[in-house]
Order: sequence, then structure tokens, then C-alpha cells
Amino acid sequence: VGEPISATHYRIAEALARIREQRPLVHHITNAVTMNDVANVTLHLGALPVMAHAPQEAAEMTALARALVLNLGTPDPARIEAMFIAGQRANRAGIPIVLDPVGAGATRLRRDTALRLLDELTITIVRGNAGEIGTLAGAGGRVVGVQSVEGPDDPAAVSRGMARERGLVVALTGERDLISDGSRVLGVDNGHRWLTTVSGTGDMATTAVAVFAAVEPDHLLATAGGLACLGLAAERAAQEAHGPASFRVALLDQLYHLTPEQLAAGARIVTVEGPEEEISRAHI
Amino acid sequence: VGEPISATHYRIAEALARIREQRPLVHHITNAVTMNDVANVTLHLGALPVMAHAPQEAAEMTALARALVLNLGTPDPARIEAMFIAGQRANRAGIPIVLDPVGAGATRLRRDTALRLLDELTITIVRGNAGEIGTLAGAGGRVVGVQSVEGPDDPAAVSRGMARERGLVVALTGERDLISDGSRVLGVDNGHRWLTTVSGTGDMATTAVAVFAAVEPDHLLATAGGLACLGLAAERAAQEAHGPASFRVALLDQLYHLTPEQLAAGARIVTVEGPEEEISRAHI
Amino acid sequence: VGEPISATHYRIAEALARIREQRPLVHHITNAVTMNDVANVTLHLGALPVMAHAPQEAAEMTALARALVLNLGTPDPARIEAMFIAGQRANRAGIPIVLDPVGAGATRLRRDTALRLLDELTITIVRGNAGEIGTLAGAGGRVVGVQSVEGPDDPAAVSRGMARERGLVVALTGERDLISDGSRVLGVDNGHRWLTTVSGTGDMATTAVAVFAAVEPDHLLATAGGLACLGLAAERAAQEAHGPASFRVALLDQLYHLTPEQLAAGARIVTVEGPEEEISRAHI
Repeated sequence: VGEPISATHYRIAEALARIREQRPLVHHITNAVTMNDVANVTLHLGALPVMAHAPQEAAEMTALARALVLNLGTPDPARIEAMFIAGQRANRAGIPIVLDPVGAGATRLRRDTALRLLDELTITIVRGNAGEIGTLAGAGGRVVGVQSVEGPDDPAAVSRGMARERGLVVALTGERDLISDGSRVLGVDNGHRWLTTVSGTGDMATTAVAVFAAVEPDHLLATAGGLACLGLAAERAAQEAHGPASFRVALLDQLYHLTPEQLAAGARIVTVEGPEEEISRAHI
Repeated sequence: VGEPISATHYRIAEALARIREQRPLVHHITNAVTMNDVANVTLHLGALPVMAHAPQEAAEMTALARALVLNLGTPDPARIEAMFIAGQRANRAGIPIVLDPVGAGATRLRRDTALRLLDELTITIVRGNAGEIGTLAGAGGRVVGVQSVEGPDDPAAVSRGMARERGLVVALTGERDLISDGSRVLGVDNGHRWLTTVSGTGDMATTAVAVFAAVEPDHLLATAGGLACLGLAAERAAQEAHGPASFRVALLDQLYHLTPEQLAAGARIVTVEGPEEEISRAHI
Repeated sequence: VGEPISATHYRIAEALARIREQRPLVHHITNAVTMNDVANVTLHLGALPVMAHAPQEAAEMTALARALVLNLGTPDPARIEAMFIAGQRANRAGIPIVLDPVGAGATRLRRDTALRLLDELTITIVRGNAGEIGTLAGAGGRVVGVQSVEGPDDPAAVSRGMARERGLVVALTGERDLISDGSRVLGVDNGHRWLTTVSGTGDMATTAVAVFAAVEPDHLLATAGGLACLGLAAERAAQEAHGPASFRVALLDQLYHLTPEQLAAGARIVTVEGPEEEISRAHI
């Protein structure tokens, strides 16, 4: 408001408008704890959610979708099998995959499954907390349960390094979200401390990113858009919250009401590494 | 208010009073995404919910219940096996079964399972959106994920035709819900557009119907009662809602507070096909 | 307020302060219907929740935790296998286990699994309603679905008898929660009737107990602390509730805001059997 709004802000606002016009289907093989919240995040942003975790229908449902979320929050053998089947189908069809390696670092099953998904599929975007990304990048990081308690020393460098090595977009979220495609590093400063008091806001962030990736082929931008949306809705929700549960209600309400204009005006995306112009010119 | 209230309205109000007196157990083998919401819908309407999805206890739990919900929202082999076991037990005991064919039309697993359940069990009521009912009736209809994007051209005729052919009650829900037992077609005009903004309101509608079917042997009337209840609670909730999440909170609050008197006064059930009198005289 | 506050009240307040300082990880193998609520209860009380229900990672995740919840709300073979694996690991490491025998009495699978868990593992605390505890104690009790409809005639005696026989703490919750370690019986009078209108408040109570057990080695006291916390938060939430769903939002908000000072002042824990002093002197 009064400040110059960067091209990036306009482009993510325009992506939000496209989500609401096109209503893309986003398929989730996801965390049983937070399924309901991520279904509603998908719907409130303007897309259509579906959750089909059986291997028997994972490929067919994926083929209908425009983005696929693989979330390791509650892994089990059938769900993991479905993730590989869905992922292979998504790769053949060019459907973007967003991986949330929940709790990678806490158990071998989670770390190994996350690494196998990264090795055997073409993952488009990986979003995790500092402990999870640090673990997957081999850069240190400690996770207790699903909570990051220790991240890498230089998170921007780790994100960029992992993004470059793997050829994908890495989002390491925290007070400042750091997003890299291997060359540029963007920071998203939207958010509110209430987000840390509610279970599943990391899963919501992953889903918001996938909703943007369903319509936006610039995956760095899509990631920034999803994270800025959730963060901005959180800032607006914080004004009405009396505690974490009323914050969650307000957050979902605000996601629904958030307009492209408000997103353009309220997003706080900065260039951490790489020229500002490169961002605004990409994919134009 | 001021208008004459039809016998149908009095009879569904009386059924709501019976639910609250008798507190029937309603067993759900249901959608993992929306389990919590449908448990609360059951409880707030005055019944007792239980969810037992393991084949090992599905029959025993069903035998304790007065209605059984089979919801295909998140199908997998064990859950489907449990549905057949529970369904057979319900059929032997004369317990009504309400089927929600979530996403029938989206994948073969969903369509085939819904058709097998309809063929191999005696289903009492099927509730779906236009795309799902159109698909099952072989009358056209398109489902993206779990969302209807195209229904049959003449939904009332399709509902009546499927109801007659299958010998059950069909509820095709939308702006006007259409309910048929093969001869009569009722319309329920209660509802609010906020219902379309929250994940799981279709599942809630199915559960509300099952709660009524647990106490009301006229299944056309039970279906109308459940749908009118949810729709009327939605109308009342819309007055307090600031967005979809606060609408959901208000919807559940309103379901709990809804009195038989308010239901009699606020239900908007109309005869779409078939004589008005036939409805009011049935089962008296 | 004006009354003398017993040593017990100070000690549970101090335990709440320790939870918030130490942020212990609490692992849940739990009810699919209410996973999200119990995750948030854990977080709002100040601990870290994790839910890992696959046998493949159950032991490893348990080893990271300071308390383990085994909740039989939605049993199936894999979840039950995971419960035994996690339970054995917890026993070897001295991690307290809190068992919630949801629906024991409704089906053989639930009753037999609860009894096997009690027989084959060292369970620290069992929390159930009157029907469930009555069933497990062989003292009568009837459960419809997951709802207690009939309890034992003398619940305090049954709790104490089962606690003594099994060598654990038994919490039989209801209008007055009765807690026994086999010699003493405490009553917790906090709570509000709204708690009975929301699905999953029993599961929340179990989780609150586990959160306290994660930091407090006096398990009678930990159980009283968890139940007093939930009950007191319910009393405070009732003042803002318009119905069961807004009550749930307020309950979670209040759990988050509840201070040790408020808990010390508002807990209503009484000695039902056994000397008052014994309680205040234990473990000092």
C-alpha cells in the first residue's frame, strides 16, 4: 500500500485468479491427522480436493488431477505403494508432484521413503521444515516426532544446494520461508506465530503450494504464491483469533475470502539470493 | 410462519423428536476425510455415532445399530470388505442401509464398488450428487474427484427411474434435493450456498438421512427429514457465518439446537411428482 | 478462591509448567475419528504430538517419546499389531502407556484387544467411561457403540479393585471422574455438560492424561492433572459456547491459555477414599 508492488506479487495474484476460474483437481495421498483441513484449504483457495489412498485407484484418480500431493505424515505400506503408483502416473502425464516429507529424520521409514520418492520419481517441489529438509539434504537437522528442533546452519544454502542437486524446487519453511530452484532463493515473510500453535499448518502450506502448482508452470513462483497466501491469511486471521482453534477457523475463512488484489498488496516476497529482475522476467 | 404446514412437515418433526428420545446407534463405515464431522452430526441430531471399519468387528457392531452408513469417500480393500460384511448383517436384521457413492464416476473402483453394493445388498437409500447418481443410473453425469460437474438432463426422472428399478429411495442432492421412491418425487428446498464451500457437507447429508432412517420406517420421509434438517440448520448458520469454517461451526451448533417445532415451521418440502395427499397419508 | 488450595493442586500446576518447559513428545496410536483433536490437545497443553500407526515405525517412534497413548477407537489388525510393538518398546524404555479401551464391551475385538493389552503389556494408566471400565473389570457395564449406557454399581470400588489387581492407575470418567491407584481414590469434579455433546472428548481426556504422565512420575497425580485441565478448560469454554462446535473451538483455545496458576486455583480434586495427607506427601 503506497509501496511499489513487484512483478512477482502481480504474477502470484494472477495465479490465484486462475485457480478460482479453472478450479483444478488436486489429488492428495496424505496425512490422516490433517486430511480434513487440507481438503478445506484446497476448496477455499478455489480448487477441488480429492483423497484416494488405495493403490487400486491411485493412478486413475491422479490422471484426473492437475497436481498431486504426497504427504508422509502417517505412512503405511499401502499408502506408500499408492504414492509410487500415483507418482509414476503423474510423471508420465506431466502433473506436478509436491512432496511433504513429514517427520523425515524421526524414523527410518519416513526418511527412507522420502529419499526413495525423491530418487525414483520426478518430484516437482519439496516442502518441509528445517529439520526435515536438513535431514534429506544430508546437512544436519533434527526432528522430534514431526517437529523440527534443529535445522541446518545456513538454510538458504542448503535449500539451494538440494534444489540444484535434485533439479526441483525446495521450500524450507519457518519464520522466513526460503524457496529455491537451485539458482535463485526467494524469501516469503508472510505468516504469524499462531501458525505454530495449530497441528497441520505445515500440511496446509504444502497443499496451498500444490494448488498454485496446478495452474502455474513456474514452480518457484507457485511455491511462493502458495506460501504467501497461507501466510497472509494467517496475518489477517490473527486479528480475530482468541486462541489456536479460533485462529484455525479464522485462517480457513480468510483463505476463502483472500482476493488476488489483497494478495498482490499483502505478499511479502523478497529476493534472498539472485537478481530481482530475473524473477520478474521469468516466464513472461 | 402464517403458512399452512403440511402433514409431511409435522411427521419429520415428530421423527426428530423420536431421535432425541431414543438415541439410536448409527454405524458408519465412512470417509476418512470427514469422519469427525459426521460423528458430530450424528451426535448433535440426537443419535449415537460409531465408526468400526475393520472386517473383524463390522458385523458385530452393525448388529447393535439401527442404521448403517456405507460411504465410499476413501475406499480401500479392507474397508470395502467390511462394507459387505456389515451390509449382509444389516440386511439379515432389517437395519436400513444408506449408501453414499462418493466419487462414483471418477474411478472404476468407486463406480464398481457402488454398483456391487447395490446389486449384492438390499440398500435402503442412496444419496449422491447429480454426477454420482447420473453415473450409477447410467443416465450420464460427470464427476471430477468427488465433485459433480455434470448431471443428467432430467434429474427428477432419473431419480424416480433408478428408485423404481432398484426398489429403493434415491436422493439426488443439489440446489433442490430430489428424492424418489419410484413413484413419488419430493423436492427439498432447504439449504444455503455456504454448504458448497465446505468439504464433507454431502457426507453430512448422508449421515443426517441415516439418523432419520434409524427411527422412521417411511424411508422417503426419513430422507426428506434428514435433508431438510441439514438444509434448515445451514440457513440458520449462514446468518452467523463469516466464511466457510465459521459456517461449519455454526452449522453444527444449529443442528444441535434445532427443535422439532423449528423443523416443522422451516422445512421446505414440496411434491415434484405425485399427489400431495399420498405423502401425508402414507404410514399413518 | 478464598479456599485453601491443597498441595495436590499446586503439584499438578507445577506439572503443567514442566510440560510447557520441556515440550515432551507424546506418541499416539489412536482413533482415526478424533486424531486431529487429540493432536491439538497435545500441542495446546504444551507437548508435541506424533501419530505413527504403521507397525514398521511404531517402535522407533515410541523410543523418541515420553508417553504413549493406545486408543482403541478404530481398531484394525495393523493398528493393533503396532500397539503391541510400540507397547513392548515403551515397557523396555520405561515410557508410560495410557490405554483408552474405546468401545470395550461393544464388540469382542475391542474387549479382547483391551484385555490382551492389559495382560501382555505393563499399562500405566487406563482411562475409560463407566461401561468400558465396568466391562474390563468384569463388574458389569454396557456400551452402545462407544457410549456408556450402564456402569458398575459402585464405580469407586470397581476402579480401586481393578487398579489394585492390575497394578496400574484406573480413571473412570463421568460427571465425577474417579481415579485410583489401588489404595487411594481421588475424584475430579471439573467438567461441563457440553463435553458430552462433542465427539471425542473422552479421547481428549486420555491424551491430556498422557501429556501429564510424560513429565510426572506420580501417575495418580498425572491422571488427576490431565483430567482437571480438560475439565477446567471446559468450564471456561462453556462461557463462550453457543453450541457443541463453538464449545469445541473454545475448549481448545482455553486449553492453550490455561496457566498453572489458574489450574491451581480452579482444579476441584477431592479425596474419595484414603487420607488427604497421603496425597500431598507422596513423591515429595
